[in-house]
Amino acid sequence: MITLADVERARARIKDSIYVTPCAHSETFSKLTGNKVYFKLENLQMTGSFKERGALNKILTLTAEERASGVICASAGNHAQGVAYHAVRQGLKATIVMPTATPLVKVTRTREFGAEVVLHGASYDEAFEEAWRRKEAEGLTFIHAFDDAAVMAGQGTIGLELLEQNPYLDAVMVPVGGGGLISGIAVAIKETNPRIQIIGVQTARLPSMKRALEAGAPCVLPPAGTIADGIAVRKAGALTLPVVKKYVDEIVTVDEEEIAKAILLLLEREKTVAEGAGAAAVAALVQGTTTLAGKKVALVIGGGNIDVNLLARIIERGLVKDGRLVRLRVRIPDHPGALHRLTGRIADVRANILEVFHNRAFSRVDLGETAVDVTLETRGAEHIAELVQLLDEDHYEHERLF
Amino acid sequence: MITLADVERARARIKDSIYVTPCAHSETFSKLTGNKVYFKLENLQMTGSFKERGALNKILTLTAEERASGVICASAGNHAQGVAYHAVRQGLKATIVMPTATPLVKVTRTREFGAEVVLHGASYDEAFEEAWRRKEAEGLTFIHAFDDAAVMAGQGTIGLELLEQNPYLDAVMVPVGGGGLISGIAVAIKETNPRIQIIGVQTARLPSMKRALEAGAPCVLPPAGTIADGIAVRKAGALTLPVVKKYVDEIVTVDEEEIAKAILLLLEREKTVAEGAGAAAVAALVQGTTTLAGKKVALVIGGGNIDVNLLARIIERGLVKDGRLVRLRVRIPDHPGALHRLTGRIADVRANILEVFHNRAFSRVDLGETAVDVTLETRGAEHIAELVQLLDEDHYEHERLF
Repeated sequence: MITLADVERARARIKDSIYVTPCAHSETFSKLTGNKVYFKLENLQMTGSFKERGALNKILTLTAEERASGVICASAGNHAQGVAYHAVRQGLKATIVMPTATPLVKVTRTREFGAEVVLHGASYDEAFEEAWRRKEAEGLTFIHAFDDAAVMAGQGTIGLELLEQNPYLDAVMVPVGGGGLISGIAVAIKETNPRIQIIGVQTARLPSMKRALEAGAPCVLPPAGTIADGIAVRKAGALTLPVVKKYVDEIVTVDEEEIAKAILLLLEREKTVAEGAGAAAVAALVQGTTTLAGKKVALVIGGGNIDVNLLARIIERGLVKDGRLVRLRVRIPDHPGALHRLTGRIADVRANILEVFHNRAFSRVDLGETAVDVTLETRGAEHIAELVQLLDEDHYEHERLF
Repeated sequence: MITLADVERARARIKDSIYVTPCAHSETFSKLTGNKVYFKLENLQMTGSFKERGALNKILTLTAEERASGVICASAGNHAQGVAYHAVRQGLKATIVMPTATPLVKVTRTREFGAEVVLHGASYDEAFEEAWRRKEAEGLTFIHAFDDAAVMAGQGTIGLELLEQNPYLDAVMVPVGGGGLISGIAVAIKETNPRIQIIGVQTARLPSMKRALEAGAPCVLPPAGTIADGIAVRKAGALTLPVVKKYVDEIVTVDEEEIAKAILLLLEREKTVAEGAGAAAVAALVQGTTTLAGKKVALVIGGGNIDVNLLARIIERGLVKDGRLVRLRVRIPDHPGALHRLTGRIADVRANILEVFHNRAFSRVDLGETAVDVTLETRGAEHIAELVQLLDEDHYEHERLF
């Protein structure tokens, strides 16, 4: 099992190439949750996530011979970028195997760092097998994303920074996939100050570490989609599990809606971009999933590499929930001027029409009538109430869609 | 005219309540622009923009009598929040007049700070008049958003921080509306180190300071909409103009598309949320609007209070431009199985269908045929080319819509 000394050595190795990310106090989230909240902003690392710490530490422990052959890994995400960036900077040849369906932007960014990208396989598992095959065939060093002592120790340097940035912390909340990040942090913190609680957060869709703790050994969960793809790991690590068992106080889970809400809150209130996995700890604290109250809590924002397409959808969903986007179905007579009269009412309350859709045959309205679905941008619930009142006064039949 | 001494006094007054925002080096933007780029992240101030510096300095210069009566201002934006937050914290009564169409979220947030919000008038000018009327009637102190020596000196504290955070800067780029921010910063920097260039950036839609410099006096521009609403000022300040004339080296303008692109770049690459005005300086540097090359440049990210609805639209537009969202019009036979055959081709290249729309009567296709507009999420240009090749092989007639 890794120890504090391993983490300290990792820090000495990587410190010149790794950004000491801020541990920023958040007044907004402190108020919101009744704790004193700090964010460890690993989304501001050069490649957008903490993964480069572990990757770099591993690279710097290689022998001259291993360095000469080069490294390989399988990843479509943050680990790929961390390995690519630091291997190339250290003058090593880096091969990254990504599933064929990897978004072009991730492929491009990894290539820009100077790595060779191999697109192979329909799933992560197939990419992993190809990487392993090449490692064997070409004598490369395989860098595992979490189940490797050097990688774990590298991630643990975040724990040392947290202790220095805020020695008075009561708890640290960490997103958990395979367990590399939390095991490193837990060793660093618990072997320095065992009073500080370490809480892991997993997506409810893939609680692999929670299950492994219950079962006493890593077990394989069925595949599941989640917006927290950075922690979508089906099987906990063999090296990480004992550390988690020894040092982690609690593992909690959050669902997809809670993660989406946390991403949106971080964006709107903290002006910072977190990916799903990065926002998991925030989701847990905001939802009150833990028993913390009035504590000094640091939340690790693990990464910020979210697909902006997904981000746009999360924003829109959030706006619908807040009533800032609303769709009303209104029954109007099917003759000239009828829509004009309706749009006049909407204009009167200064709501912005985004879309109009006519349902004739497919809605239960009388012949000579039509149902129009109007999608509106509003100022929120009060604003909608104002419009609804106006529609009622004019005797429109209407309903709010979802 | 204000002097360095005024700015230094402002700093002594406000320093306990203002966050010294990071001046963060950006490797990505340095590479992108060929300069050494630093971001002064005022979007991380408590109320999401630099405005609270000036507001707080003004509040702390009031007499006991003025404090007892309270303060008032007109603003739907960052100035409102800055005044509300600090006035209430200092135990003063704060009245904020906002135009009636102000988004609910901004009204709510300002009320949450403890200020009284008055909704009045269809435009900012009408809100301004109402605020002035109340100031006279109720003996309140009016806090102008920029044309006030104490406000200007407060904003200038950013200049002092920049000099300390990076004394080797060659240039500072600052978004310009009424001129409060740039005049304060220019005084602080030029009176300390006149070698450092100060460059102002305005939206091309409302270049009020540029025009004022050309005309020798502030002149009123016609109203214009812009996504940089924080610098949408129709008339430069009477107090700010002479400072800008004396100390600012150059004023450049950026257009709406350039600002939108800068917002998206900051989001994707820097993981930080900037509003339109906040991203203006970044837009200018990225577009090569200035003559800087190989210089150490600090860009002031003035604020991050962007409406997330607008942000979602900026993201979508950006994706369309990058080809990551695309709409194809494809001609298919109007019989069972025809759409299924087309969707099969699309599935073959693993592009995700977001929307399908049939044009029968309204497109120039033969009877017995239909044109379908398919909106797709792709990995980018190469991916689209792959799909197009497949469609060509199958003899589909198709075109790309915008």
